[in-house]
Amino acid sequence: MKIADDILNKIGIKPGDRIRVYRDDCVFEGIILPRTEYDDLDIIVLKLDNGYNIGVSINKVKKIEVIEKGSFKEAYEIQESPKDERGDIAFIGTGGTIASYVDYKTGAVHSKMTVEALLDTYKPLREMGKIRIRQAMSKFSENMTPNDWIKIAEYVREEFNNGVKGVVVLHGTDTMSYTSAALSFLLDNLPGPVTLVGAQRSSDRPSTDAYLNVICASKVAKESDIGEVVVTMHATISDDYCYVHRGVKVRKMHSSRRDAFKSINVPPIAKVTPKKIEYLSEYRKASVGPIRLTGGFHENVGLVFYYPGLKADILSKLYDIFDGIVIAGTGLGHVHEDLIPIIKRATDEGKPTVITTQCLYGRVNLFVYSTGRRLLKAGVIPGEDMLPEVAYVKLMWVMNKTRDLEKIRELMLMNFRGEISERRVAHELP
Amino acid sequence: MKIADDILNKIGIKPGDRIRVYRDDCVFEGIILPRTEYDDLDIIVLKLDNGYNIGVSINKVKKIEVIEKGSFKEAYEIQESPKDERGDIAFIGTGGTIASYVDYKTGAVHSKMTVEALLDTYKPLREMGKIRIRQAMSKFSENMTPNDWIKIAEYVREEFNNGVKGVVVLHGTDTMSYTSAALSFLLDNLPGPVTLVGAQRSSDRPSTDAYLNVICASKVAKESDIGEVVVTMHATISDDYCYVHRGVKVRKMHSSRRDAFKSINVPPIAKVTPKKIEYLSEYRKASVGPIRLTGGFHENVGLVFYYPGLKADILSKLYDIFDGIVIAGTGLGHVHEDLIPIIKRATDEGKPTVITTQCLYGRVNLFVYSTGRRLLKAGVIPGEDMLPEVAYVKLMWVMNKTRDLEKIRELMLMNFRGEISERRVAHELP
Repeated sequence: MKIADDILNKIGIKPGDRIRVYRDDCVFEGIILPRTEYDDLDIIVLKLDNGYNIGVSINKVKKIEVIEKGSFKEAYEIQESPKDERGDIAFIGTGGTIASYVDYKTGAVHSKMTVEALLDTYKPLREMGKIRIRQAMSKFSENMTPNDWIKIAEYVREEFNNGVKGVVVLHGTDTMSYTSAALSFLLDNLPGPVTLVGAQRSSDRPSTDAYLNVICASKVAKESDIGEVVVTMHATISDDYCYVHRGVKVRKMHSSRRDAFKSINVPPIAKVTPKKIEYLSEYRKASVGPIRLTGGFHENVGLVFYYPGLKADILSKLYDIFDGIVIAGTGLGHVHEDLIPIIKRATDEGKPTVITTQCLYGRVNLFVYSTGRRLLKAGVIPGEDMLPEVAYVKLMWVMNKTRDLEKIRELMLMNFRGEISERRVAHELP
Repeated sequence: MKIADDILNKIGIKPGDRIRVYRDDCVFEGIILPRTEYDDLDIIVLKLDNGYNIGVSINKVKKIEVIEKGSFKEAYEIQESPKDERGDIAFIGTGGTIASYVDYKTGAVHSKMTVEALLDTYKPLREMGKIRIRQAMSKFSENMTPNDWIKIAEYVREEFNNGVKGVVVLHGTDTMSYTSAALSFLLDNLPGPVTLVGAQRSSDRPSTDAYLNVICASKVAKESDIGEVVVTMHATISDDYCYVHRGVKVRKMHSSRRDAFKSINVPPIAKVTPKKIEYLSEYRKASVGPIRLTGGFHENVGLVFYYPGLKADILSKLYDIFDGIVIAGTGLGHVHEDLIPIIKRATDEGKPTVITTQCLYGRVNLFVYSTGRRLLKAGVIPGEDMLPEVAYVKLMWVMNKTRDLEKIRELMLMNFRGEISERRVAHELP
């Protein structure tokens, strides 16, 4: 068996070069990507102009032609757009798989590729108008903190104030929905769409979903009149279209599939292809501006998933630590009855408890069962149909504004960004 | 408007009576149920012989006829089957919505109805052979504890030893999948199916799903050759068929819908109607027995969902409390890098950490990203595609057998009950 790297080295071809590869049956042209540990040793990986990556075995290659020497850098320097430069849409890089490269010494993926480097290979973007590039940070999203959410929000504000029509935030998928919820609450009076976008597989891998996601997100940022924070990601496991999800109603529901992101309890806002945006449900229209930042986050809030065996004394210790807790209860919003007195005591001490459901889908209803009624008496705030994560972000945001328990309850039950969807009453009598 | 209760009281009709109600357009016959606070005041609720409940407005009723005085008791006495009585299938009552009644003073649902009372209205069951009835407890499932799991397992063992072909466990839906996982690990060498069943709406409500669920579960218990613990619940929002889910791969995914229970990462084992069982995937066949109980649970284990903002010192405090922790990490199984040294220290102290994914769907993979590799180095045990809740129950079960870290790792990675599904490799090169 021939080793691809040996042959490429011998003829002086490097990642980043545009080459043409001749097989008996067909010819491929594209930019050569660094090989990953997942590729067999005989494979050359090419990014084609249509955005797909393919792997070609060197054993079947009859001829290789260099079309253009490339500029694929091993380590990218961040080159931000100057502040006063005009732009149609802005890309804000934060890191994540979409902007990561494979370290082929260890085989692991690192989040060090910059936005600019990523966009180098995305031709259609360059034709979408003037793109501004900003690099807010470069980290995997599991490392994001509430401070990072604020930093990203400040970049978004700056870019709208700078005159762009919409903003694309490149972000890791792991905590993307936490960030989209946080930005939703932070940013008010949006003059255009803010869409987060990411990839489940890194941009230099044959199966990457980055290309369609980025093209669709850019289309949303440039052309839609949405005035909300949204998430644009693959809708299916094929490379056919994306969904635009409301930032406060979306969740990553699969660890690796392209179609991992799902709108929970509501339909997506829109379906997008590189050619067309089709709106599926109501959304808030872009304002005339100016964009506003609405405070920050009180960090000392906990998110606790209830499970059988979680004892009262442990919950009690958690209330010692946190100023407020969101519980993901079972079913309609329940916990073991032994925990109710602990929640009551915390309420009496001025510490709010919001209850949501670990089912994720559906709504909390504390009126149906005796457990729910006792929880209400103990002072819990029903999280309606908010996702546990969204209720957590919202409670941090609310507690940054007030520590008054009644005010917190009032704000938690208020629907600011579509985080609470309308209660639909099903009447089942014939 | 006429008030239904006033009229019924006047003519001496009580809940439990079989009546015939004449409207201009049609005639209904059924057993009258207690009214709930959800029903309008003019509504009479009838359980029809086909299992459906309907509400009829008294204003449209021309005539009411009493067919048979009923025996619907307000408070049920538990009447267990004698130990030495022969039976084909056994029903073990534990409480929950399926065996609950509405307290129409407060409108809340209480879990006090016994199995026997429930089955009173389920005619087809009486024709299914000799049914044994046991009442293990009477509680909502949010109040279940690991001790209750063991108690239920002992009832199951007793019933198989007593000669039944299969066992139906009536259980609240809130923590049903925790109990099904626990019974799966506890019970070995099953001579027949053990199926949990429940209802999302109580048996005396018009929209109850109890009827189809109970009939289908009974069919599975009586006729299938499954030797696993399974969950039989509505597959769709219509009253058409149920799915049989593997006890270690199922989760309640909606707070109120009938089709809330979903098999995660695997297809259901079977599709069941009152007439037919259709097998959809492989399952463990019933053994010749005898059934065995395999230990118990080490209770001092924690289940922690990671979220941005969860700080190292808090995780550190949780390790002070628990002897082992299951983390539901983000994406492929990640947490903030600051938590990794805390996990490493816990490992060094002999405390195991199992990592799963809060996406719920998909598999943990710690080889793709640098965070995952660092977690592996810190000693985490990858939870493969186990649900966080299942990994939690399994870790309690494993730690009851051994406290040796290497042995714990070995047992957690061993596939005992189908809790880890086979890794499918997708090869995406053209």
